[in-house]
Amino acid sequence: MEHEPRLVEVRKNILKQNDVLARALREQFRAAGVFVVSLVSSPGSGKTALLEKILTSLNQQYKVAALVGDLATENDAQRLARSGAPVKQITTGTVCHLEAAMIQNALDGWNLREMDFLFVENVGNLVCPSSYDLGENLRLVLWSVTEGEDKPLKYPTIFNSADVAVITKMDLADAVEFDEPFAVGNIHAVRPGMPIFKVSAKNGFGMEGFLDYFRSCHTKLRGTAAI
Amino acid sequence: MEHEPRLVEVRKNILKQNDVLARALREQFRAAGVFVVSLVSSPGSGKTALLEKILTSLNQQYKVAALVGDLATENDAQRLARSGAPVKQITTGTVCHLEAAMIQNALDGWNLREMDFLFVENVGNLVCPSSYDLGENLRLVLWSVTEGEDKPLKYPTIFNSADVAVITKMDLADAVEFDEPFAVGNIHAVRPGMPIFKVSAKNGFGMEGFLDYFRSCHTKLRGTAAI
Repeated sequence: MEHEPRLVEVRKNILKQNDVLARALREQFRAAGVFVVSLVSSPGSGKTALLEKILTSLNQQYKVAALVGDLATENDAQRLARSGAPVKQITTGTVCHLEAAMIQNALDGWNLREMDFLFVENVGNLVCPSSYDLGENLRLVLWSVTEGEDKPLKYPTIFNSADVAVITKMDLADAVEFDEPFAVGNIHAVRPGMPIFKVSAKNGFGMEGFLDYFRSCHTKLRGTAAI
Repeated sequence: MEHEPRLVEVRKNILKQNDVLARALREQFRAAGVFVVSLVSSPGSGKTALLEKILTSLNQQYKVAALVGDLATENDAQRLARSGAPVKQITTGTVCHLEAAMIQNALDGWNLREMDFLFVENVGNLVCPSSYDLGENLRLVLWSVTEGEDKPLKYPTIFNSADVAVITKMDLADAVEFDEPFAVGNIHAVRPGMPIFKVSAKNGFGMEGFLDYFRSCHTKLRGTAAI
């Protein structure tokens, strides 16, 4: 493995460069008063379905926009655009995560000052996105009841890089015999005290409390900005 | 992005080194007459549940063994060991895929000539494992009905790096209103003619045909080796 130290060194430089850019983005977001939320999860955990509901609901009261990352296709951007919010797709090719530079490029032509919320849906991956700060205020890690209760133990880094855990597809909890206390215990074993929301985009379970959380985040942000 | 060309160059070297090692592994497997199957999928697609069934069934007729990759925990190895087959866990830390060198190290102390089948469960990830040949005879890409029908379009590289697609959790197909013709069409849009198995480890749906496929692969391998 003679090349490994060199790879590690180059990777550190890339990450450092990303951190610098993410800090600049965070400052831009703060100055514009936009609250930025990113979503990470495995492929198929329901990020897009959940985001579609969030955008549709918040769009009635706020100015919301979204960026959505995928290796290929514009499908998610088309789905999310049905909410009425402006949406841009970022296609990463073979890259397994979004980076701050991709966010910066995608924001070109958008006026952040005209936004209340910006949502960023990462590439479906429970490993790679954990290393890349995107300048967001809040990172949600989603995980569906169909994936098994053990995921926080097996992917601890992504749970540690996120602020809030969201258990999705609660409408299927009975069908898959989801053991909620075990799942919650596993989250808190990795990240004691981590806030958890349990939702279903399909039947609306838990959605009002979840949306209220975003509303309160926004009020707090604008309150802080006013001071 | 001044560092990017250097990263690409180093990555090419790593991949080249992996390919050389994977070729050597493949030759070792061939000489020993062991049929090697790897499984890739998102986290929570049911790799371990399916593999538990495969090992338990084939173990009655063949000598089977398994290697299982995860970022953290020995949980999967413990689960799979219940089948009676020898199992080793490979923990990768923050690495999002298995590499040929990890397989080689894990095989230390095992006699390949005493095996008929070796199963290798990759880290749950639909992106990174696609670049790393592990010397396997057959790569399965798994994907559960709960993840949505669009995954082949969104993760084409992994479908192109695999030999066979396996649609899992068929017991939940009705609950999630799984559109099977659409899903199959999406697989074949990315990879025309790709063989597809539809299974449920939970209720046994499709398992006999799936297991027969492995038996026929083994017969073919030994037939070739005998010539």
